[in-house]
Amino acid sequence: MADAIVFNGGARGNWKVLRQGAIKGAGLGNVAFVDRGTKGDAGASWTLSGVTSNLRYTNASEKKVLDATPSVLARPGATRAALIPITKSAAWWAMAQDERRAVLEDKSRHIAIGSDYLSAVSRQLVHCRDQVGAPFDFLTWFEFKPEDEARFDELLVKLRATPEWGFIDREVELRLEKAA
Amino acid sequence: MADAIVFNGGARGNWKVLRQGAIKGAGLGNVAFVDRGTKGDAGASWTLSGVTSNLRYTNASEKKVLDATPSVLARPGATRAALIPITKSAAWWAMAQDERRAVLEDKSRHIAIGSDYLSAVSRQLVHCRDQVGAPFDFLTWFEFKPEDEARFDELLVKLRATPEWGFIDREVELRLEKAA
Repeated sequence: MADAIVFNGGARGNWKVLRQGAIKGAGLGNVAFVDRGTKGDAGASWTLSGVTSNLRYTNASEKKVLDATPSVLARPGATRAALIPITKSAAWWAMAQDERRAVLEDKSRHIAIGSDYLSAVSRQLVHCRDQVGAPFDFLTWFEFKPEDEARFDELLVKLRATPEWGFIDREVELRLEKAA
Repeated sequence: MADAIVFNGGARGNWKVLRQGAIKGAGLGNVAFVDRGTKGDAGASWTLSGVTSNLRYTNASEKKVLDATPSVLARPGATRAALIPITKSAAWWAMAQDERRAVLEDKSRHIAIGSDYLSAVSRQLVHCRDQVGAPFDFLTWFEFKPEDEARFDELLVKLRATPEWGFIDREVELRLEKAA
């Protein structure tokens, strides 16, 4: 049983938008705030929602590394965030499990790269591909301290240079600051 | 983007219930018919829905076997069906990907066993674990000719005897006949 995680983009919310833009494919309407919660808001410009779910690619030894540095949201001082909704291509989803794993980790080192940033960047992967009519496959969410934003930028540069990113069809990025 | 597959249990539908029962955990209210379609029916006794999705465990060589015998629904003469909603345990979902694959295939031969029945039994795996509030993880659907029902029974006996089935928390079975 999954709990909903909902992002309402609009005129109010618990995160202020510093900047937003389309990295690949269509963007999202510009908004001043994003409200991160558990319910839709009929007054929002757009609403994106999904659920946390089980690990899809991580193996047992990689899971040990992740479990040793749990990704805790709302850490003191972590007043910056990024919401990056992404959609992968039909070619990605048509691959067998071992073929996707080979691109994601053997060729792209996605889990290994991410592991280097666990202490600076808290992450949450929100799944929406299996929701009827969802416009994105994943809503990726990151929180960090303002002084760690350069490290987060570095993480994005590394990931976007991987073979895995060749399977990204749509990507939108919003940088956020915790609303007072 | 996923399309919904919806099962409405009630007084009408395109499949007549021959028998139904709980295999493990709570059952579903008894109904005379199941309607398999794409939309909920407010008049139904219960409604279960989900989506088809990408392969989760199948590797490239196993996928070749599956692709060589595509599972086609509504085949001529396939007038019997089974709807078996299942939920796996928290222990299952807490495992890493390689640990789940080890139980599913290395120890339980789930994919290999299923492959032996591809010609007799058409299958569709409907995912609902990542839908908010869904009571089951999967709605498994099978179609076969009346003369192949004994083979389908055999398939169920084999799968239910596997280590993987130790991770099933809830399982309900409905046997169906195509409504005239």
